Amino acid sequence: MEKGKFITFEGPDGSGKTTVSKAVSERLQKMGYPVRYTREPGGSAIAESIRDIILDPKNTAMDARCEALLYAASRRQHLTEIILPCMEAGTHVICDRFVDSSIAYQGYARGIGAEEVLSINRFAIDNVMPEKTIFLDLPSELGLQRIHSNHRTADRMDQESIAFHNAVYQGYQKVLEKDRDRMIVIDASQPVETVIEQAFQAVKGILDGR
Amino acid sequence: MEKGKFITFEGPDGSGKTTVSKAVSERLQKMGYPVRYTREPGGSAIAESIRDIILDPKNTAMDARCEALLYAASRRQHLTEIILPCMEAGTHVICDRFVDSSIAYQGYARGIGAEEVLSINRFAIDNVMPEKTIFLDLPSELGLQRIHSNHRTADRMDQESIAFHNAVYQGYQKVLEKDRDRMIVIDASQPVETVIEQAFQAVKGILDGR
Repeated sequence: MEKGKFITFEGPDGSGKTTVSKAVSERLQKMGYPVRYTREPGGSAIAESIRDIILDPKNTAMDARCEALLYAASRRQHLTEIILPCMEAGTHVICDRFVDSSIAYQGYARGIGAEEVLSINRFAIDNVMPEKTIFLDLPSELGLQRIHSNHRTADRMDQESIAFHNAVYQGYQKVLEKDRDRMIVIDASQPVETVIEQAFQAVKGILDGR
Repeated sequence: MEKGKFITFEGPDGSGKTTVSKAVSERLQKMGYPVRYTREPGGSAIAESIRDIILDPKNTAMDARCEALLYAASRRQHLTEIILPCMEAGTHVICDRFVDSSIAYQGYARGIGAEEVLSINRFAIDNVMPEKTIFLDLPSELGLQRIHSNHRTADRMDQESIAFHNAVYQGYQKVLEKDRDRMIVIDASQPVETVIEQAFQAVKGILDGR
């Protein structure tokens, strides 16, 4: 049996990653593609309990390196419990966030350093990287406006300052520059239907081997 | 103000680390030494919630690398929230387990490799190592017998096989060989009062600068 493909969605908070990646997954499933939608941090019982600690708004005392290690722990568990078994069974995996998020958020925005954060993630992922990554590009101000107008309950990461979210955006730009071949960039300031359509065409192209 | 010293207790399960390190800390405190007793994994609210995930007997699906990353995350938080502030304030810290436990348990017994586990711990501890480590030496069979006769509720690590605990013991021997100068080895098969007395004399000697 042919192994499933591994595709991730990345982008700053409010860029629509969850809405778009879910819509694309459902559309592909309806067409008969073997697709599993999943998200980070979390995606399995153990990984979700790690997610709860990371995102709990009460945990204001959390150290940046502790946060980075928790994301890596959650990623590892999610990878071994969900992503790899699905791929082995021939199912394509569409995952909302992966290593790039840690490089942008903890490596750049928290100031730990991209190389340092990459090192603990290498331990976590053991060379498993997504074949392609859909990057939903949106300036951080627009993303935060969307979160607030959607009345989404702000978690510990959403509550960070605009300076932090700007630094995340800049971090993502450096990730993009470094790994151009893997990245498919979509302008996420377009109407959400357009973003979904473009992301759908891109992912379908990858699954069809185009 | 002179910085506090950092001393750890290590040894296999059932070797009496908690009993001995607590008794030594209390005796020193009664004599007027500024001493803080703490333990791993845990020691602060966030670190304790990570500990709960690690030790929950329900979490049988936990991957070994996830486990190692969780220990490192908990260690990092414990270090920045408890250990370093105490030392800065001139208090000596006596800590039940630290990096050596991860090398023995995850590096050797789980088979991830000592060097790999050390790399994520370097990220976590940022060069902070204990000045001295009291190693309570006890064959794993004796340690497990003690746990069972004490009717202690077995956590996820206690429930591991005797082969696992033997591998932990062998792992600790390699840690000992590698870092002889830091280690003070005490025969933990002696009566507990004797072990406490020897550990007390050793720790007092370190604090007195002997």
